Amino acid sequence: MQAFFQYNWMIRDQWYAWCETVPEEELLRQRTGGMGSILKNLFHIVDVEWSWIRLLEGKTEFQEDFDQFNSLEKVKALDVELRPEVKAYVEAWNSEMDSLPLVLPQEDGEVEILAAGEVMRHVIAHQIHHIGQLSVWSRELGKKPISPNLIGNALIKPQQQK
Amino acid sequence: MQAFFQYNWMIRDQWYAWCETVPEEELLRQRTGGMGSILKNLFHIVDVEWSWIRLLEGKTEFQEDFDQFNSLEKVKALDVELRPEVKAYVEAWNSEMDSLPLVLPQEDGEVEILAAGEVMRHVIAHQIHHIGQLSVWSRELGKKPISPNLIGNALIKPQQQK
Repeated sequence: MQAFFQYNWMIRDQWYAWCETVPEEELLRQRTGGMGSILKNLFHIVDVEWSWIRLLEGKTEFQEDFDQFNSLEKVKALDVELRPEVKAYVEAWNSEMDSLPLVLPQEDGEVEILAAGEVMRHVIAHQIHHIGQLSVWSRELGKKPISPNLIGNALIKPQQQK
Repeated sequence: MQAFFQYNWMIRDQWYAWCETVPEEELLRQRTGGMGSILKNLFHIVDVEWSWIRLLEGKTEFQEDFDQFNSLEKVKALDVELRPEVKAYVEAWNSEMDSLPLVLPQEDGEVEILAAGEVMRHVIAHQIHHIGQLSVWSRELGKKPISPNLIGNALIKPQQQK
């Protein structure tokens, strides 16, 4: 699980650096699909990751409003603020936590029960999906997207050859 | 690892069903980003997944050519042919295999050594990234994309509440 989160944080930081090379109006421009703009996608990734981790911790979360984070600097600052809590939870994660129940009260009075391991994988897949959308918008801008390769980043060390 | 592959196969099959509702010329139409068309993305996902698993098995793989698989039926048939081998490998996977070395000879005579667990995660992320691209193209076509949600599919069973 740790390797996937490290991958996502690495790729996200590379996209922030990519954003520095693009006029802010392009980052905010309304686009087809995803959350509707490059910055909204990045904001949404940060927001959703933190919100699920808060629920897994049994803490409150709140729906952040993009209007308060409508610049690259603000999204990056939010990420800097929220990531340490996510990181601490991820670092303490082990596979025995996979089936821990997360009880989500529904509006109709029922409850939905998710497995914590399912939520963690959802958070991972959620970012990768929205980054895939960024890659299309990047090409529309005539720019090379960030490589999404997971291999080649030494996220897991291979055993020494005998 | 198994939950992620199950997720990817489920989503891929839902996209095949989505493709049935779209004229084939739209599936083949050249688009910006990704592998350049809806069908090329799906073909590439199948091809890459199988090829990496073959390498992990120490077997030969070959670069399939899209020209031989340029219809939805042909891509689906290729997937039906290749998925059982992938599935068998995934089902036999356990976390102790994470650091198994995969030795890849390079053209310059050097070797690259990857950890098997890194390759498995690469294959998982690879599909999710390319599916994210499909979701943008789907909106461009005015169609609702397949939901990428991983939660809510009972991929991992939560412990019973006390």
